[in-house]
Amino acid sequence: MTANSDNAENITQFNNEKVEVDALSVAPFPASKKIYIEGSRADIRVPMREITLTDTPTDFGGESNPAVRVYDTSGPYTDPQAKIDLRTGLPDVRSAWIEERQDTELLHGNSSNFTRDRLNDPKLASLRFAHMRPPRRALAGKNVSQMHYAKQGIITPEMEYIAIRENMSLQQAKEQGVLNEQHAGEAFGAAIPDEITPEFVRSEVARGRAIIPANINHTELEPMIIGRNFLVKINGNIGNSALGSSIEEEVAKLTWGTRWGADTIMDLSTGKNIHETREWIIRNSSVPIGTVPIYQALEKVGGIAEDLTWEIFRDTLIEQAEQGVDYFTIHAGVLLRYVPLTAKRVTGIVSRGGSIMAKWCLAHHKENFLYTHFDDICEIMKAYDVSFSLGDGLRPGSIADANDEAQFGELETLGELTQIAWKHDVQTMIEGPGHVPMHLIKENMDKQLRECGEAPFYTLGPLTTDIAPGYDHITSGIGAAMIGWYGCAMLCYVTPKEHLGLPNKDDVKEGIITYKIAAHAADLAKGHPGAQIRDNALSKARFEFRWEDQFNLGLDPDTARAYHDETLPKESAKVAHFCSMCGPKFCSMKITQEVRDYAASQGVNIAQTEEEQTVKLLDVEAEMQKKSAEFREQGSEIYSKV
Amino acid sequence: MTANSDNAENITQFNNEKVEVDALSVAPFPASKKIYIEGSRADIRVPMREITLTDTPTDFGGESNPAVRVYDTSGPYTDPQAKIDLRTGLPDVRSAWIEERQDTELLHGNSSNFTRDRLNDPKLASLRFAHMRPPRRALAGKNVSQMHYAKQGIITPEMEYIAIRENMSLQQAKEQGVLNEQHAGEAFGAAIPDEITPEFVRSEVARGRAIIPANINHTELEPMIIGRNFLVKINGNIGNSALGSSIEEEVAKLTWGTRWGADTIMDLSTGKNIHETREWIIRNSSVPIGTVPIYQALEKVGGIAEDLTWEIFRDTLIEQAEQGVDYFTIHAGVLLRYVPLTAKRVTGIVSRGGSIMAKWCLAHHKENFLYTHFDDICEIMKAYDVSFSLGDGLRPGSIADANDEAQFGELETLGELTQIAWKHDVQTMIEGPGHVPMHLIKENMDKQLRECGEAPFYTLGPLTTDIAPGYDHITSGIGAAMIGWYGCAMLCYVTPKEHLGLPNKDDVKEGIITYKIAAHAADLAKGHPGAQIRDNALSKARFEFRWEDQFNLGLDPDTARAYHDETLPKESAKVAHFCSMCGPKFCSMKITQEVRDYAASQGVNIAQTEEEQTVKLLDVEAEMQKKSAEFREQGSEIYSKV
Repeated sequence: MTANSDNAENITQFNNEKVEVDALSVAPFPASKKIYIEGSRADIRVPMREITLTDTPTDFGGESNPAVRVYDTSGPYTDPQAKIDLRTGLPDVRSAWIEERQDTELLHGNSSNFTRDRLNDPKLASLRFAHMRPPRRALAGKNVSQMHYAKQGIITPEMEYIAIRENMSLQQAKEQGVLNEQHAGEAFGAAIPDEITPEFVRSEVARGRAIIPANINHTELEPMIIGRNFLVKINGNIGNSALGSSIEEEVAKLTWGTRWGADTIMDLSTGKNIHETREWIIRNSSVPIGTVPIYQALEKVGGIAEDLTWEIFRDTLIEQAEQGVDYFTIHAGVLLRYVPLTAKRVTGIVSRGGSIMAKWCLAHHKENFLYTHFDDICEIMKAYDVSFSLGDGLRPGSIADANDEAQFGELETLGELTQIAWKHDVQTMIEGPGHVPMHLIKENMDKQLRECGEAPFYTLGPLTTDIAPGYDHITSGIGAAMIGWYGCAMLCYVTPKEHLGLPNKDDVKEGIITYKIAAHAADLAKGHPGAQIRDNALSKARFEFRWEDQFNLGLDPDTARAYHDETLPKESAKVAHFCSMCGPKFCSMKITQEVRDYAASQGVNIAQTEEEQTVKLLDVEAEMQKKSAEFREQGSEIYSKV
Repeated sequence: MTANSDNAENITQFNNEKVEVDALSVAPFPASKKIYIEGSRADIRVPMREITLTDTPTDFGGESNPAVRVYDTSGPYTDPQAKIDLRTGLPDVRSAWIEERQDTELLHGNSSNFTRDRLNDPKLASLRFAHMRPPRRALAGKNVSQMHYAKQGIITPEMEYIAIRENMSLQQAKEQGVLNEQHAGEAFGAAIPDEITPEFVRSEVARGRAIIPANINHTELEPMIIGRNFLVKINGNIGNSALGSSIEEEVAKLTWGTRWGADTIMDLSTGKNIHETREWIIRNSSVPIGTVPIYQALEKVGGIAEDLTWEIFRDTLIEQAEQGVDYFTIHAGVLLRYVPLTAKRVTGIVSRGGSIMAKWCLAHHKENFLYTHFDDICEIMKAYDVSFSLGDGLRPGSIADANDEAQFGELETLGELTQIAWKHDVQTMIEGPGHVPMHLIKENMDKQLRECGEAPFYTLGPLTTDIAPGYDHITSGIGAAMIGWYGCAMLCYVTPKEHLGLPNKDDVKEGIITYKIAAHAADLAKGHPGAQIRDNALSKARFEFRWEDQFNLGLDPDTARAYHDETLPKESAKVAHFCSMCGPKFCSMKITQEVRDYAASQGVNIAQTEEEQTVKLLDVEAEMQKKSAEFREQGSEIYSKV
């Protein structure tokens, strides 16, 4: 055990009395306010961001434009009313709900040996989160997973919260009468109802088709759902490595990532003080936190994969579960017999967890202990409601290796494990590739649904080509959008630094925005009710030259505004009825508006179909020639008369 | 006419004696050399870029890695042997081929009134390209289009050149025995042969399924082909506007765009000195140049759409054809009866050309003169071999307007016009949208193929959502990759500045690289023979920690290297067997290599199928337990023994 070996150098770098929130992460969004929709009880308060719009200019009709509500992952950080102090953590959201269920107890101490060692080490005092709470665990014999409640027909406050959250745009769509009726996702087996009810949330969780990652020790959590009949979610990765990054930096990556739209955050730390870093992250996170416990277990055995044992791994699971980790990536499908299937690959095994387990299997010539102890792991998961994210340790790391025997063999095993997890009522999603050319993506999705009983799929990309290091957010954003449409429930982001280095803040933002695009494109293609509200509002603003509204409705108002101002920096240009692309004389939108005004003012009947129109045109040809002369006499420029 | 109204202010800014090539555009690519493959005659010299690779490290096998050839659009600019002087233009490639056909004549003067006015204006002397050549035109009654030759069974030097160029990676694929056998594109009706022969090029051009944009006055051109049974191509847009940009800047945008991979360039200038700017561009371009002649025609009538006449437009076509423009966007499908169909759209008409013609049609209450004069236009096109790019003036400008009656009505008319163009043996491609959600993209492609007799499709994106201004290279790159897979022949790039401002050099590069990714992802998905060579070479380099090779094989070596160096700047890190993502102890690729070495060194038979492997594992279990002990005694770390 190396629990105390890595403290000395970091203690001088960090002082828990002085830690401050990242200033950029708490700035409010322009023209936006945080609103809360109350549920059936006062403590269900679902946050949304409401973007206020300006009126349409008089020339274009002068109507007012209703505010647009958008899904908000940024937590209390963007609420000016909230008191943010990283040292005390975020306000409590869920404790009352958990306590009411009367199936858990507060422990008098931590169940993990490792945790106790860390807590007892005085040298760690300045590093440690100062306001620790005792951990909570299920009472003996109780199962506290959302799936367990769902199967019993219980609608939890978490489920109601999620229903309100997912219906965010639907309310507006109803008011505006623009419900998306296409339901295109049905082509691939999705079944998204017009309105997401709490009962629908329950039934999807009970069926295993969706999960609510919500550890009972993560009471700061704003509940969310991952499943293909809901909005597509995205994950952002953070985490230090042996090469650097501090606790404060990791928390800043969290708040920065959720500001731009990360629905969950995975802490993939492999460096120093993983335990303390994680505590800071969870206490300050309003989104679910996922981890890969084998990384920390490996640190505990000095990085020697062969020295890993079930006991060390088990203690790590409990350590992290009692901190409040919401989902664990577990590489239980890397079976001994699959390992040699990777030897002829172009890029072998590229998953860290996968390669660790492969090395362990080969060294011991035993079956993967995560597989042989899978029931034991389920017992831990259900005592804290940690969800499985069954890892794809044998995912392809190159186009050449996509959809091969090793990958699909593991996927079949993950299907088998899903059934075991479900017997324990443990919530489960399945991780997927990786590098896959476009024509092989759908096969991945279809096979996952088939093998894994429609458990939610959670994929990394996939990257659709290997030839663009520096741009793998884009190579993978293409694949992510497609697999989201096909039914993938959550997309793990990729930053521009993928394969090359550690992402900085700009890279994190670039990765998040790219994946928000992919997820939203998928929501549109699936016909998610109300998804198109934001597109329509933005396009209407664009057409009417409401520049500020166009910026503010975008995924990244700051960048949109900055790009506009590069060419036309003056404030007056933001109310101009033209843009820099074409200049004042040559704007197609301006001309279109003239066409529209003319069609209305001159009494040209706007026919509904081409056939009708053709008939009308023949009827009124003589009339039109007369109007034409009038139009030219009037000077042709409608606006010149105003 | 405003031919001379805009000169005064620009003359002071520009001196044709001092114009210099953009230094960044002529830098050679790292570890790359320009090679030329000779065809059946000495003056067919097809350029390629060959990337030299290092040997695999001894630990990983020590083999040498063959150089990789990549398609090269950068022209002579990246050839250190070439003498580049923008004032004299690029060396001649095609004159001998054209002269040999004996169906053209050099004119004694220009046929365009506008051109003659500009040439006779002494105030333009310092602006004018100094080494003008007389224009060439078909002899009376002759048709000089590549389609005309193709239909007669003639294989032109241009066609042979293209066959060699398209087979670039195929030769390597054969040598390495890794021909892509999937031919996945067949799913959508593509029929890509294993080897692109000159005869195949001819037959596709004769059939109208591909075009070779190659004006007889663009003799500097390195021929290329656009068609769905060839590599997917991309277009980059340049052009000044009323708000700025000089001739030198526009030429720099051209050389910068082709450096990073633009297969064609469209000059969309709407500002000052369009005529002179175009001359500089064409004389210095090795890729086809496209334009939208209506833009310049509108400038000539002071920006008043109603004042456009067939005579002014006709003179503009001839003016540009004699300069060497290779394809013209012609919005001949914007019919009077379609215009009112756009009035209820969220974003009306967003095409500049479309809105100009709509305004003209409504003002005159006459049918679009581009439609009524279509045969006359064909006569001009075939006298210079200018290809049609039939414009989609009614393309959707928002998700809400996708695939509507206006758009599809116009597409049907473009199909009708294609048949007329083909009767004249005029090469034709069809422009497409625009903003289209993912689930509606395939309908666009299928309808285009059906309505337009499989003429090549050339689309802008499509953008798969409206909500990300500042990132529309990505919203559209997703749609571009998909429609490329479905059969789109050329993808018009979109930069991050789309909808917001004029792109700078960084934006142009970002747009081009994004679209190279989309096009290559589509080539992989279509199963283009040999497309995967570059992916495989890069992934092998990545796996073997050949960092420099990984950078150099990428679409953008500079950015890949810079990103790597941000985390690990030392030169020694570029030969390190680990990367910054995981650090030295924790590298999955390193572990995989150990697995592989161990599998080989310990005599573990690598079975071909899972079933075989399972059997073998049962057979050798006892043996393995023995080996296991040995492995652990040896210290487990294979490399520690080296």
